[in-house]
Amino acid sequence: MGQALGLLKSWVTSANAPGHPFPLNNLPCGVFSTGEEEPRCGVAIGDFVLDVAALEEEGLLSLAGGPFLDVPFWNDLMEAGAEVWAVLRAQLTVLLAEGSNDQAAVEPHLAPLAKVDLHLPFLVSEYTDFYAGRHHATNVGTMFRGAENALPPNWLHIPIGYNGRASSVVVSGTPVRRPWGQVKGPDHAVPAFQRSRRFDIELEMGAVVGTPSDGPVTVAEADAMIFGYVLLNDWSARDIQAWEYQPLGPFQAKATATTISPWIVMKAALEPFRTSTPARAIDLLPHLQEPGPMLYDIALEVGLTPEGGVETVISRTNYAEMYYSAAQQLAHHTTSGCPMNTGDLLGSGTISGPTKDSRGSLLELSWGGKEPIAVGNGTRTFIEDNDTLTLRGQCKGDGYTIGFGDCVGQVIPALPDPYARS
Amino acid sequence: MGQALGLLKSWVTSANAPGHPFPLNNLPCGVFSTGEEEPRCGVAIGDFVLDVAALEEEGLLSLAGGPFLDVPFWNDLMEAGAEVWAVLRAQLTVLLAEGSNDQAAVEPHLAPLAKVDLHLPFLVSEYTDFYAGRHHATNVGTMFRGAENALPPNWLHIPIGYNGRASSVVVSGTPVRRPWGQVKGPDHAVPAFQRSRRFDIELEMGAVVGTPSDGPVTVAEADAMIFGYVLLNDWSARDIQAWEYQPLGPFQAKATATTISPWIVMKAALEPFRTSTPARAIDLLPHLQEPGPMLYDIALEVGLTPEGGVETVISRTNYAEMYYSAAQQLAHHTTSGCPMNTGDLLGSGTISGPTKDSRGSLLELSWGGKEPIAVGNGTRTFIEDNDTLTLRGQCKGDGYTIGFGDCVGQVIPALPDPYARS
Repeated sequence: MGQALGLLKSWVTSANAPGHPFPLNNLPCGVFSTGEEEPRCGVAIGDFVLDVAALEEEGLLSLAGGPFLDVPFWNDLMEAGAEVWAVLRAQLTVLLAEGSNDQAAVEPHLAPLAKVDLHLPFLVSEYTDFYAGRHHATNVGTMFRGAENALPPNWLHIPIGYNGRASSVVVSGTPVRRPWGQVKGPDHAVPAFQRSRRFDIELEMGAVVGTPSDGPVTVAEADAMIFGYVLLNDWSARDIQAWEYQPLGPFQAKATATTISPWIVMKAALEPFRTSTPARAIDLLPHLQEPGPMLYDIALEVGLTPEGGVETVISRTNYAEMYYSAAQQLAHHTTSGCPMNTGDLLGSGTISGPTKDSRGSLLELSWGGKEPIAVGNGTRTFIEDNDTLTLRGQCKGDGYTIGFGDCVGQVIPALPDPYARS
Repeated sequence: MGQALGLLKSWVTSANAPGHPFPLNNLPCGVFSTGEEEPRCGVAIGDFVLDVAALEEEGLLSLAGGPFLDVPFWNDLMEAGAEVWAVLRAQLTVLLAEGSNDQAAVEPHLAPLAKVDLHLPFLVSEYTDFYAGRHHATNVGTMFRGAENALPPNWLHIPIGYNGRASSVVVSGTPVRRPWGQVKGPDHAVPAFQRSRRFDIELEMGAVVGTPSDGPVTVAEADAMIFGYVLLNDWSARDIQAWEYQPLGPFQAKATATTISPWIVMKAALEPFRTSTPARAIDLLPHLQEPGPMLYDIALEVGLTPEGGVETVISRTNYAEMYYSAAQQLAHHTTSGCPMNTGDLLGSGTISGPTKDSRGSLLELSWGGKEPIAVGNGTRTFIEDNDTLTLRGQCKGDGYTIGFGDCVGQVIPALPDPYARS
């Protein structure tokens, strides 16, 4: 844990290129298809996706309790547990290592990444989103409630979260249609049903639950349940949110879409990058204390590309800015006895750093729309139609990089009339 | 619609008994098993459950696109759509009607209700809970925010809802373990992690989504998507809720369990009992207006039975008290484009009437614990260990009754130490 390994060299030579996001150290898990074939499990290596379903069928991978991989989701493998996850990584590492005796058998099962379609990598059982970045919570709280009341009284004691909508989780590349919704500005006497005018991103990491629980779990047990991490964009309609969220929290403002990156980076690939949560402002109760470092040093950025224009990077930050780790969030999630299942997805909450250019939402970057930011030749307060938003993440190791694969979504115009039927 | 049919007589003579909850008019959908057999779909008729999976296999039921029923959930049939639902009811009505030619073929597939195990009747895709009873919202708002601010500003304009936790939905009869959680009273400097001391019920109806949607739907379309209704008890830890719910809504306070009754009463069985929502205090925007009556006249009651004691009915009310119908709630749920799926469950919100004895939660019945209510030889503010709570519902027709089957849960003591491992 915390120990740098150096680049593991592969006979897939593109994986050895400096800065490549998918070296042999990574082996992230996705679901792919080529042409008319059925989607199935694949692992990224260099510029290719490896058809691990075919390897399992041919006996080049041998996983106890399998087969797990000739399905369009990683849930079966995830549910099989940490020993199987470790065996999979170990076998793939042997098969793909420079000098492997299996190169001739494995090579036919590589497909160029540029020629495959990527799908949601797992069936999302349920989706929970947290509010666990202190800079974000302070920024948003200051805008909504004033600086004195920025952090709610419970914020430093529990990772505040709410249940989101699993049905709205989509894979990177899926267009996101600007929603309609009921809004009411402070100057209006009555609400109106209209297109959202303050449509926004939230830069987050998503933790993917691998093994289930059926009762309260410790933070260490929660960490062990997590299979891996994805990038996550929790699209948010701020005008809908402002009107609806009291007293029971965000609902339709967050239900249009949540985009995740197509590759689950397994926890094992992130081990060298573990880091502790920041110092506590107030000690947590014992059941929420971290027994070891459970955040990760993951550099993050957000790019905004207007239609036909060039990208501007509007934010650069790091997952290590979070006040609570996914393990702490998952442990809290189980305190009431809430059963957690394979495929549950936990959004970290918006990841904002301490500086203005490290904020993870346009709400913060433009300070509630009052301070437009420069984008290309123009400015932005919130997202405009046909803007493309891209989240990127990477861990910089000793001679190698662990990449997450981009998390991309273009915002397309709202329906002209949401109740018109084709 | 709204037209009473009179009792449909069956050769299953117990179904014809006055006041029986399961006459031929009802035909509610459950999942049952006997002994070592696999759970499968069944329909209640009189004192029996009819093995509809066996009828389908033998060709006595013929449903286009099937088979649907030899599985431990009704989701496949639900997804098949309203025409198939209607055909199923029509065929069952012919098979079970007094004088049917099929009695000899059907009768071997009846099992006494007293001898079967009942399971969750459907796979819960996602669970949403609303806050749509005006008396309840006014009562709770008065307790938490004072009489002037009882109803939030948005309350009369949209059905306020939040996403709950599908993994915690259990079938009637499942024991419910008192949760632990983080709480902080107004007199305490720091929070504590302890057993919930204010564990409560919420008397609700649950609407079960039959057919999916992928974009905004009208109220009429939403009504057509609903397969049927169940009784629903949204167990709530009020002390955990009070500490956690700002700013993002209830989370662990509602995640211990939600109990539903074992039978889905199909919408068709409820048609004669349709009734309109109450007069609007403020006109709704057009997309939320009801095109016809979409609530139901369902008499409801809650019984509390102390361990070894006798039951006291602590509340009597009616589903018709709700300000918003499930169709309005479902329509609102889709405004942002949120995809809805077969098996989604929508809790109505707590159903309280205007009088003190018609309140649907102990929070209201005991006015925040300040006014204990009489139960047997003692009193209650909130639930005590080993209390059994029973929700009942029925529609009184012209010579017949549509019953829902009890929704029962006994609260068992909290774990002595939630982090002890066996």
